[in-house]
Amino acid sequence: MPGSVFGHSFRVIAFGESHGKCVGVVVDGCPAGLELSEEDVQKELDRRRPGRLPLVSPRVEEDRVEILSGVFRGRTTGAPICMIIWNRGFDSSPYEKIADLPRPGHADYPARVRYGGFNDYRGGGYLSGRLTASFVMAGAVAKKLLSTKGIEVLAHLVQVGGVKLSREVSVEEVREKAANSPVFCADPGTEKRFVEEIESAAREGDSVGGVVECLVLNLPAGIGDPLFDSIDADLAKILFDIPGVKGVEFGAGFSAASLKGSQNNDPYAIVDGRVMTTSNRAGGVLGGLTTGMPLVVRVAFKPTPSIRKPQRTINLRTLEEAQLVIEGRHDPCIAIRGVPVVEAMVAMVLVDHMLRLGHIPAVLR
Amino acid sequence: MPGSVFGHSFRVIAFGESHGKCVGVVVDGCPAGLELSEEDVQKELDRRRPGRLPLVSPRVEEDRVEILSGVFRGRTTGAPICMIIWNRGFDSSPYEKIADLPRPGHADYPARVRYGGFNDYRGGGYLSGRLTASFVMAGAVAKKLLSTKGIEVLAHLVQVGGVKLSREVSVEEVREKAANSPVFCADPGTEKRFVEEIESAAREGDSVGGVVECLVLNLPAGIGDPLFDSIDADLAKILFDIPGVKGVEFGAGFSAASLKGSQNNDPYAIVDGRVMTTSNRAGGVLGGLTTGMPLVVRVAFKPTPSIRKPQRTINLRTLEEAQLVIEGRHDPCIAIRGVPVVEAMVAMVLVDHMLRLGHIPAVLR
Amino acid sequence: MPGSVFGHSFRVIAFGESHGKCVGVVVDGCPAGLELSEEDVQKELDRRRPGRLPLVSPRVEEDRVEILSGVFRGRTTGAPICMIIWNRGFDSSPYEKIADLPRPGHADYPARVRYGGFNDYRGGGYLSGRLTASFVMAGAVAKKLLSTKGIEVLAHLVQVGGVKLSREVSVEEVREKAANSPVFCADPGTEKRFVEEIESAAREGDSVGGVVECLVLNLPAGIGDPLFDSIDADLAKILFDIPGVKGVEFGAGFSAASLKGSQNNDPYAIVDGRVMTTSNRAGGVLGGLTTGMPLVVRVAFKPTPSIRKPQRTINLRTLEEAQLVIEGRHDPCIAIRGVPVVEAMVAMVLVDHMLRLGHIPAVLR
Amino acid sequence: MPGSVFGHSFRVIAFGESHGKCVGVVVDGCPAGLELSEEDVQKELDRRRPGRLPLVSPRVEEDRVEILSGVFRGRTTGAPICMIIWNRGFDSSPYEKIADLPRPGHADYPARVRYGGFNDYRGGGYLSGRLTASFVMAGAVAKKLLSTKGIEVLAHLVQVGGVKLSREVSVEEVREKAANSPVFCADPGTEKRFVEEIESAAREGDSVGGVVECLVLNLPAGIGDPLFDSIDADLAKILFDIPGVKGVEFGAGFSAASLKGSQNNDPYAIVDGRVMTTSNRAGGVLGGLTTGMPLVVRVAFKPTPSIRKPQRTINLRTLEEAQLVIEGRHDPCIAIRGVPVVEAMVAMVLVDHMLRLGHIPAVLR
Repeated sequence: MPGSVFGHSFRVIAFGESHGKCVGVVVDGCPAGLELSEEDVQKELDRRRPGRLPLVSPRVEEDRVEILSGVFRGRTTGAPICMIIWNRGFDSSPYEKIADLPRPGHADYPARVRYGGFNDYRGGGYLSGRLTASFVMAGAVAKKLLSTKGIEVLAHLVQVGGVKLSREVSVEEVREKAANSPVFCADPGTEKRFVEEIESAAREGDSVGGVVECLVLNLPAGIGDPLFDSIDADLAKILFDIPGVKGVEFGAGFSAASLKGSQNNDPYAIVDGRVMTTSNRAGGVLGGLTTGMPLVVRVAFKPTPSIRKPQRTINLRTLEEAQLVIEGRHDPCIAIRGVPVVEAMVAMVLVDHMLRLGHIPAVLR
Repeated sequence: MPGSVFGHSFRVIAFGESHGKCVGVVVDGCPAGLELSEEDVQKELDRRRPGRLPLVSPRVEEDRVEILSGVFRGRTTGAPICMIIWNRGFDSSPYEKIADLPRPGHADYPARVRYGGFNDYRGGGYLSGRLTASFVMAGAVAKKLLSTKGIEVLAHLVQVGGVKLSREVSVEEVREKAANSPVFCADPGTEKRFVEEIESAAREGDSVGGVVECLVLNLPAGIGDPLFDSIDADLAKILFDIPGVKGVEFGAGFSAASLKGSQNNDPYAIVDGRVMTTSNRAGGVLGGLTTGMPLVVRVAFKPTPSIRKPQRTINLRTLEEAQLVIEGRHDPCIAIRGVPVVEAMVAMVLVDHMLRLGHIPAVLR
Repeated sequence: MPGSVFGHSFRVIAFGESHGKCVGVVVDGCPAGLELSEEDVQKELDRRRPGRLPLVSPRVEEDRVEILSGVFRGRTTGAPICMIIWNRGFDSSPYEKIADLPRPGHADYPARVRYGGFNDYRGGGYLSGRLTASFVMAGAVAKKLLSTKGIEVLAHLVQVGGVKLSREVSVEEVREKAANSPVFCADPGTEKRFVEEIESAAREGDSVGGVVECLVLNLPAGIGDPLFDSIDADLAKILFDIPGVKGVEFGAGFSAASLKGSQNNDPYAIVDGRVMTTSNRAGGVLGGLTTGMPLVVRVAFKPTPSIRKPQRTINLRTLEEAQLVIEGRHDPCIAIRGVPVVEAMVAMVLVDHMLRLGHIPAVLR
Repeated sequence: MPGSVFGHSFRVIAFGESHGKCVGVVVDGCPAGLELSEEDVQKELDRRRPGRLPLVSPRVEEDRVEILSGVFRGRTTGAPICMIIWNRGFDSSPYEKIADLPRPGHADYPARVRYGGFNDYRGGGYLSGRLTASFVMAGAVAKKLLSTKGIEVLAHLVQVGGVKLSREVSVEEVREKAANSPVFCADPGTEKRFVEEIESAAREGDSVGGVVECLVLNLPAGIGDPLFDSIDADLAKILFDIPGVKGVEFGAGFSAASLKGSQNNDPYAIVDGRVMTTSNRAGGVLGGLTTGMPLVVRVAFKPTPSIRKPQRTINLRTLEEAQLVIEGRHDPCIAIRGVPVVEAMVAMVLVDHMLRLGHIPAVLR
């Protein structure tokens, strides 16, 4: 019954509600000896903060992380790390008016069935996108752990609505340009069109979807636990745990279905004394194991379900048809905030698997 | 370190090797009282059997299941069910010749790194597609359990190489036509083109990818365990555990990224007194929970990596470049055999979640 | 690596430190719909509070629970329940002086090895007996869940140092007398001798051990998951997780080793139409399953390792022999506070298993 | 619901039935590169074989292990290791006669409730002591892994019925004398009295209990995962999974309850440059972590419940009182065969924890 625990050797437990006291996370299994400060975590939380676009400014929360346990004198102790951000300044009254009107595209109705109507429905409660803050906090720890091994996790936006990244971008562009772009876009030309697409939807009281691509660099070969804990399987699982994700693909992904084997197979070669492949249609994963090539995963986000346009729904109490108007300002493209969340999720899975195999030790010295 | 165990309340443990004594599976957590015979399992195994196309006839094995435990007087006892198929009549000699030449698109190289060179490399060993027989055996149990609740899991092929299913097909067509098609195709016109695409690739010593779609009917709303055991997350995880899978999407999937919220949200309505949505772009999942609408998941398979065409690789012992020619006859489109495997995997996840929530009881009376 | 998560279907995650900001717990998998207030939890925490004996008054903390998540309008929502007690008014300075002197009978030395010296050693940090407050908070939820099924968990003290409970006591005496005794003793005559034993040790700057017995009433037959999740196995596991526990036995326990089979077997009989045994040397467990008879488990606590008497130890930095004097006032008999902790632990395991088997549903209506 | 999987990083799955086709086990997570032969496993199975005493000769089975997977060219591959012993030459007819008469001290009645009457009741089915053969097979792998680190697991019998080991024995005596004793007794004088006690009970158609002590030598300090995966907790759990175990204690165990803190605490000292304690009342465990001193655990076995003496029971179909006479010859003291089983169980837990912490690597080179 419990679904709030992620991981095998690096465990993450999320708790909290959108309109409750807080959103929090416990990280269990972090090696002792990692330097960790609230600033390290805050930096990642700030990347997730909404309001990066002037036109797009939903509920703004300060989201200051507080570390409650597991850190002593600036380093992790090996004990579980509890981190919390306190909820402040929200207004739940709009949700009371629509308590019986399930919002299309949200989990209101299935959650009501699943939890027998006892769930906190305000803003989605535990199922709110706000819970992704807990992922980002845990991911900040995971990313620090990966950095001790020189591993880098870089996500960026490659599609917004009908607009796709117009050209191949380099790792450097992702690392530098995307990181500083308000829409995490590595190409300035495309960035402009992404923003237009989003603003146009926002003006209409509508929203748009998008696709996030995540690269992982310097990952060693041979990470993963087939059959059932394949590295791509575990990554896909946690990526689908992000609210709004509808598709995940590695490397050539769905387009691999159209290819011939002779086109899709990546030939091996020795480059600078290392085993590599001359292409990377596998996206860095074969047979559930990393290949040593960059990991490449793409994640499709649906458009934000909360839109201002009136929508058709029903009243779950009277079972009559109803019209729903969602108040407040909502993020018109959740894929943007999905970028740091995807990075966090990917980092968590990689740390979990590297701990399992001893690539990261139980104590960092 | 161990990755051979799937599931929480319905656990599946796979073992065996492509060129070892057997392929087997243990199913733990199956409720007591389910009628189960070797024929029930054999029926599913036969659907996975290669050689459904005249032109396409790789290693043919009889693959007769033997149930070793957990069934007493025709019913499951609640104890773990071990099922085995014995390997017979294989020839490992071709693999000895290429033991040091990693096959592009296969897991040979990462497996060698992961297991320090101790893995059984013959035919991929434990990482062979042959292990999907273990999934099908476990899935046969899962499908029988689902059928006690009237739940139906139906997969079919919707794309082969560049050819897509040319029209929308009905559930009835999937249930009847696809089941009897050698390429699990619900549309006779498309079936012909699928076969041509496959045979054409086979003639060239090449292979093609494909896309499998799986529908689940009569699934109740509210199944899943957010945040981390979302139903779509658990389904995606296990689907990526199938060798050759590179993408998974639910409902509108990647195309949802191009849509507006007003287009993608499924409006609610009351139909025959039941809560439904008038469209199903969500693919039956919202917020990690089933919606009560049909579950729709699509799975992209890459082309079979084993092709007859010569390929470029390296010798892992000498670290010199090498040319590889793979002998034997191989399935030119693993997506076909992916159809029963996808069904098995989906059924396993659904049973696991239904057991967690008590939708399926611990004892069937 | 992570050890902070208990359970399968009812999961409990403990965090915090003795001298950190707080001690907390997350309960995941609690069914939705349970009435739960901070008072419900506080009541159990108060039973664990030290200072029940005038002579015996270590660090007194207020220990007010705060529920941070998972409860909405007085009922559990099905989302994880985070509960915290904030640490206040402690003095860590005594621990700085002895940071390099491992206290005999404490985990200081092995923890230093395990966590590479990064652990918070003040008061034992995460390994402190103070963490049992997290168990009691989670146990309060578990006990409420059991009470919805009429199941009662009753622990009492049956031995303190050399003094044993002088006679058989009835369930009613345990329920009423022990509950109101400062040393959880069901027999007033023995209670006096328990207190003397404790006060005598305290006067000498020493401590005493004790034995807690726990009874569970109205438990149905057939609960448990053999082979590896036997009900007694899971109970023993979690009881040994309580700091200071050195032995666990069920029913006749160690004395069963001295018996003949004809003496130890409990004969079956029909009593009031129910299957019962006419004795209960099994302690309510056979083959890892509950028998329907009262569950009887006894737990041996060692004497509090923190004593005022000087002790021989070493300096882990200089590797020289050293003498240790532990300052402050410490509980001279941890077995007393063990009583509510044992109840909490037992309740957690039973709820976990009853949820697995559907004896407690996912939603309480 | 499933209880057939043990472990976190070293996983063991048991299956089979007393009177079914086989008893088997899958070991998942064993590092690649361990030399392993059927002889290695057979050696341990032979120690568990009944019939070590002339007077005491229950069902004799050959119990030849067959390794089905996970070993290639004499070494483990990292893939799951399935091992099976085939059941032969048993007679189930006595069980048919008593199918409705639950045997006192056996799990017949609770199993019937737990599994709704669908369980294989013949000889206890899945709950039979015969399943301990699966533990011994998995334990053989674990012991080989421990031996690569110089760790030795030595169990011996310290009590049979009313007879206790009459003197302290040395590790050497346990290693040599107990290993060659038909009753695993380290002291020849006591051995004679153990045999008399057993034979006397057997003559009367009765049985006796016993206590097994297990020592682990050369275990490093700092192994364990507090709070919930304490090393003693995990050991206790798995020891209670052995049929017939009613008590487990570490070091001073229950007798610690009678001690003062000043008596029970083990003082630290530097011996040969190593941190040690001058006594070992802790039994090698403090705060859930190993101390580096020998691990000492004692396990109480009840007398064999199957006795020839007539017993009082009921008929579960008619609910009338009944008299039961158990046919066949049964082991009069299961504690004897408990010795290798305890060793196996202890080894499994230690390997699991050493793998978690990286003390044993994922690949043995």
